[in-house]
Amino acid sequence: MSVGTVYGLGLGPGDPDLMSVRADRLLRNARNVAYFRKAGKSGQARGIVAGLIPEAAVEHPMEYPVTTEIPFSDPRYNEMLSAFYTNCVGHLKSLVERGEDVVVLCEGDPFFYGSFMHLHSRLVGDVPVQVVPGITGMSGAWTATGLPVTWGDDVLTVAMGTLPEDELARRMGDTNALVVMKIGHNLEKVTRALQAAGRYDDAWLVEYATMEGQTVTRLAEAQPETRRAPYFSIIIVHGQGRRP
Amino acid sequence: MSVGTVYGLGLGPGDPDLMSVRADRLLRNARNVAYFRKAGKSGQARGIVAGLIPEAAVEHPMEYPVTTEIPFSDPRYNEMLSAFYTNCVGHLKSLVERGEDVVVLCEGDPFFYGSFMHLHSRLVGDVPVQVVPGITGMSGAWTATGLPVTWGDDVLTVAMGTLPEDELARRMGDTNALVVMKIGHNLEKVTRALQAAGRYDDAWLVEYATMEGQTVTRLAEAQPETRRAPYFSIIIVHGQGRRP
Repeated sequence: MSVGTVYGLGLGPGDPDLMSVRADRLLRNARNVAYFRKAGKSGQARGIVAGLIPEAAVEHPMEYPVTTEIPFSDPRYNEMLSAFYTNCVGHLKSLVERGEDVVVLCEGDPFFYGSFMHLHSRLVGDVPVQVVPGITGMSGAWTATGLPVTWGDDVLTVAMGTLPEDELARRMGDTNALVVMKIGHNLEKVTRALQAAGRYDDAWLVEYATMEGQTVTRLAEAQPETRRAPYFSIIIVHGQGRRP
Repeated sequence: MSVGTVYGLGLGPGDPDLMSVRADRLLRNARNVAYFRKAGKSGQARGIVAGLIPEAAVEHPMEYPVTTEIPFSDPRYNEMLSAFYTNCVGHLKSLVERGEDVVVLCEGDPFFYGSFMHLHSRLVGDVPVQVVPGITGMSGAWTATGLPVTWGDDVLTVAMGTLPEDELARRMGDTNALVVMKIGHNLEKVTRALQAAGRYDDAWLVEYATMEGQTVTRLAEAQPETRRAPYFSIIIVHGQGRRP
């Protein structure tokens, strides 16, 4: 019996119409569909493609043992997540060794800040793994602003809102174009850093890019309720480089 | 008679299987297909999707009046390109005003260092324009290396090989993950900057990512003939951030 393949399937920014032709085909023909989700939730990645999963497919939810209850800095966080990923990988391997293919749903692009990477690094070398790239969430976000993000020789910096405020401010002041992800409860810190770097007035806040409920606002005009900034928030500062 | 729409169609990194479902559908139903190309060439973007353009579609090649014959710094370069884009826009508008939809083929993602941006900025406000994002060439490149590009809180810097050597070196030394595009005849300069920044040994050179002729090599092991680095070259240095 031949061994199966694990496919890390980039789903793109959210609108299923923005999945790649390859990802769409693999998903519509899938016999096994795996995805991460928070305990008690149906899963963000699964939600994106709910209508495309074949009825006969077996679903394999992988439930995070912890999300924000324990801080990253606590060694227990790493231990629990590591044990969780090892467990997921054991399950995927058992499927693949029985000859089954498994698609793992990945929001955005699997190799760009993706959870799938933690499975990938534990699978490669042991079983066949293929990664299907996807349109990143940030591409979805800058497209939603209706303005190009980088021109000519612009430098683009992508930084996470989880970084220290002074480091964020330094990097924001030393780039042409800017993307900040992982906003969530870091929004106030990110806002102060943008102000310190003189980039606040040029910053856009995009929520749920390409999805139902998409909002695109200048950060300075964002409403108080927006300021809670959901998980799917991205801040964009467009480059202003050379253009004939 | 209703007015048509100009679609900036992100084609992705090169493999037509990596176009979005939406781009694929728009292209297969297109009546007018426009694309940039160098004089005397069939066009890189057109080459990506040659098999998908409907037979009945009218093609509208837009031939650059100049590419590398005149340096960017020469004011004539900007003047010639600006006149060229104005001319292209006039042609697209005349089609759209007759009620025709036009798809404009864009390698990668239209709003990420794309030529379409120069048309977009001259079209918006006058006629309907829609942008379909695409998988970036850099996503295709890091996927081809088989290694994730960014983990945890990694900072990603995207810089063009056209920047001055000392600026390149400074930025290469001040980031976790790195993408360098527009390599071409800048390869030797980019190599020296990577060495100065201590990132040379970790750099990968990806050519023709996801396309026929794809090569993936550590830069230090790249062969002399590779060192000429074609247009579709991207250098990747992977981040090594937090992972449980």
